[in-house]
Amino acid sequence: MSEAVSDIGLVGLAVMGQNLALNIADHGYKISVYNRTTSKMEEFVAAHPDTPGGLVGCAELKDFVASLKRPRKIIILVQAGRGTDAVIDGLVPLLEEGDIIIDGGNAYWHDTIRREKDLTSKGLRFIGSGVSGGEEGARFGPSLMPGGTPEAWEYLKPIWEAVSAKVDAKTGKPLEGAAPGKPVEGGVPCTAYIGENGAGHYVKMVHNGIEYGDMQMICEAYDLMRNLLGLSAAEMADIFKKWNTGILDSFLIEITGEVLAQNDPETGKAFVDIVLDTAGQKGTGKWTSISALDLGVPAPTVAEAVFARCLSAIKEERVAASKLIAAPTAKYEGDKGELIQAIHDALYCSKICSYAQGFQLMRSAAVEFGWKLNYGEIAQIWRGGCIIRAGFLQKITDAFAAQSDLANLLLDPYFKETVGKLEASWRKVVATAVTCGVSVPCFSSALAYFDGYRTANLPQNLLQAQRDFFGAHTYERTDKPRGEFFHIDWPDPKRPQIKS
Amino acid sequence: MSEAVSDIGLVGLAVMGQNLALNIADHGYKISVYNRTTSKMEEFVAAHPDTPGGLVGCAELKDFVASLKRPRKIIILVQAGRGTDAVIDGLVPLLEEGDIIIDGGNAYWHDTIRREKDLTSKGLRFIGSGVSGGEEGARFGPSLMPGGTPEAWEYLKPIWEAVSAKVDAKTGKPLEGAAPGKPVEGGVPCTAYIGENGAGHYVKMVHNGIEYGDMQMICEAYDLMRNLLGLSAAEMADIFKKWNTGILDSFLIEITGEVLAQNDPETGKAFVDIVLDTAGQKGTGKWTSISALDLGVPAPTVAEAVFARCLSAIKEERVAASKLIAAPTAKYEGDKGELIQAIHDALYCSKICSYAQGFQLMRSAAVEFGWKLNYGEIAQIWRGGCIIRAGFLQKITDAFAAQSDLANLLLDPYFKETVGKLEASWRKVVATAVTCGVSVPCFSSALAYFDGYRTANLPQNLLQAQRDFFGAHTYERTDKPRGEFFHIDWPDPKRPQIKS
Repeated sequence: MSEAVSDIGLVGLAVMGQNLALNIADHGYKISVYNRTTSKMEEFVAAHPDTPGGLVGCAELKDFVASLKRPRKIIILVQAGRGTDAVIDGLVPLLEEGDIIIDGGNAYWHDTIRREKDLTSKGLRFIGSGVSGGEEGARFGPSLMPGGTPEAWEYLKPIWEAVSAKVDAKTGKPLEGAAPGKPVEGGVPCTAYIGENGAGHYVKMVHNGIEYGDMQMICEAYDLMRNLLGLSAAEMADIFKKWNTGILDSFLIEITGEVLAQNDPETGKAFVDIVLDTAGQKGTGKWTSISALDLGVPAPTVAEAVFARCLSAIKEERVAASKLIAAPTAKYEGDKGELIQAIHDALYCSKICSYAQGFQLMRSAAVEFGWKLNYGEIAQIWRGGCIIRAGFLQKITDAFAAQSDLANLLLDPYFKETVGKLEASWRKVVATAVTCGVSVPCFSSALAYFDGYRTANLPQNLLQAQRDFFGAHTYERTDKPRGEFFHIDWPDPKRPQIKS
Repeated sequence: MSEAVSDIGLVGLAVMGQNLALNIADHGYKISVYNRTTSKMEEFVAAHPDTPGGLVGCAELKDFVASLKRPRKIIILVQAGRGTDAVIDGLVPLLEEGDIIIDGGNAYWHDTIRREKDLTSKGLRFIGSGVSGGEEGARFGPSLMPGGTPEAWEYLKPIWEAVSAKVDAKTGKPLEGAAPGKPVEGGVPCTAYIGENGAGHYVKMVHNGIEYGDMQMICEAYDLMRNLLGLSAAEMADIFKKWNTGILDSFLIEITGEVLAQNDPETGKAFVDIVLDTAGQKGTGKWTSISALDLGVPAPTVAEAVFARCLSAIKEERVAASKLIAAPTAKYEGDKGELIQAIHDALYCSKICSYAQGFQLMRSAAVEFGWKLNYGEIAQIWRGGCIIRAGFLQKITDAFAAQSDLANLLLDPYFKETVGKLEASWRKVVATAVTCGVSVPCFSSALAYFDGYRTANLPQNLLQAQRDFFGAHTYERTDKPRGEFFHIDWPDPKRPQIKS
């Protein structure tokens, strides 16, 4: 095959790749597809003979490249890391100046920065695009976070806007297709150019980090209801379904309701009750936490969520420990409905803090890497298609629309007032949890963050004095301008190892 | 100068380097010293004409090398990173097979692994040694954590054992010199060969991470007493001095008492009250947290301590936020003495959890990097000379002596019983803090870790079920052996963007 017939190409036909290819074809674009294992490509193309745009299966990479209209647009959806580099290395000799490679994998943003630089030097163009929404999102409307060569975006934009999820322009609510598998008509697409080089993958990473926090906090809410109130999975399913109609309205709350209502096909028991409590992870939560540490941004809540997964993974050690260390005997004796409502409130407040941290992290990264990020637009992109889609993201968009240089979400009037109204419940939940021995690392970390952030005078004056004492690290003074550093000639103290 | 007269050499005469050189000379070793800025070397040597071993000042690197007996032993104490590499690059052409370079800086352990490999390939030997104890420790007895080429250690050992801090063989208590500046006689040296290549610097890094936790937890104790009880710095100084005579006995508690008792020479006010509450950091706490994230080890408490410093650093933002967000009105109404005792107990329990995390981290690193670490010995090394030296480290040494494969400090009988006795107070303190709005990120994180670790069934069954739902990530079952992974064909759920 040597005729350039396709609008775009895609390399890597695992489920995500297949679904995104079908989504693109559904929107009338002809798409060439290539996979290292040819049989997989052949089966895929044979199974979908009648897409609106049409699938063009290519067994050889050079035919695949030749089948694309110029400037060629090639999406890579393979294992992040070396897999991506290998595909790029294979493609580069076959491409011509101005062709565009789009990495849709979960790339480490430093890799994206490197690849963009490298390909630009070769006359090619590169987009690193976060693709969120899992398999279902890729198929019917993902949230897409593209970053990279600015002029390349103009070529990708029509396709990315067509295949992305859509939200209502006024309410920000995700729009639905007319029928199963039918594309959404109209609405605001959940994609926009994020920024240069690695910006798209960075923002996707923060999205995933926030997702870690959201999932862990839902687990904490579930654990509290299970342990303090003895609720069954079915009872909690109803609670989450109800919560999904209020301020917590979101994909993760919705599916939690469904997961809790699900029975195990094998035993007929509640499904969650037969699932082992060991969480896996693929690294983006870890990257988010590491980036926060590197940039010096206080984002402890995502880190706690990552560590909570690590702790869950050492199941055998925990089971052994549980036989040696007794749980506290305190029980919750108060009103059931009141505690359920308080857990709801605690979840919402904790979630706000977690997002506040995530947006602060993006702000610092933008300074560090020279990106111009539009935070309201990022929240808008996350409104549909992705795992963390939630009603309250519209509030974030609104907050940045009202004040584009907002220092912290907690200072926005809506969030400030909401937390102000709910924080007593939040404090009560954390206090009850620590009294009764239910581990709530994210609820309590978010609360410590909130109390730290709103406190003018933290105790690090003592810490800095200690540092000056033993390491001559100097200190600033409350009665002198910032940036002047002082050191006390400490009276030689009694040292444990040397008498003085 | 071309005669080989000196037992050892040292490059880098900042305060740490000067003090370590004097310490070595005090023990009768002749030491050559070199500094990039020659005048600094000359001033230093001129100021100390009468040390027992003698200082040999060298203006040229080649003379410095020539002045050393073979195999040459050269300590580098310069800015970690490129500074160290630059000195090594300058030395290598001047050295001969079997010569030993000792990096005493706060090197990143991956750099130490790289340098050891590189120098070994050149026929040289390399030790990366953590040096803890600050300026005072370097001068009169640091804690020394050497790792690297095993046969090189034999040459360094006598000197390292001579200059290190010493503890009593039976009680583990730091020994004191007969008079100011006089070396300690006898006792167990606070140094031992840690392990191959980067092991010494890794253990030193974990030491520093633990130090971050210790300092933050002391700050939280201080903040609680200041805010909930309105105690003055002088009153708290007395409390810390008292605490230093009990189970919290440690260098950091001791100096906290001294710092709190200190008056500001300029204003006469309590010194801590004029110090600005913005903590600096040099990176080792961050490295520890990143390593924990990379290795998947639940070590949230150090990470919270690092993030607390980050939050303290955005002073202006906090001051602005404090004017917009009201603090809760709840006040502590209970008994003063009781709360002080409970804060003491909370501090000790939190500290135990923080160390438990640190030792779990070292255990995972040992597996990852192929080191054989002796945990009881590491605790022993930390008993004297270093910033975290504390009575309770002897309990850790005892714990590993009783059970060398102890999975977690919390399972050791002493620690288990102690936490069991004190945990009610700990829970009360955290509950009070969250109710009254005092930010206690490390106290609460440590408690969440404790409650998570001792819990057989955590809520990550729900999380793993969510992951299977939206990402087909599979799950394990409670009624099947570990390592078998399952996936539910989820009934196509109502998706926000596509009706089904």
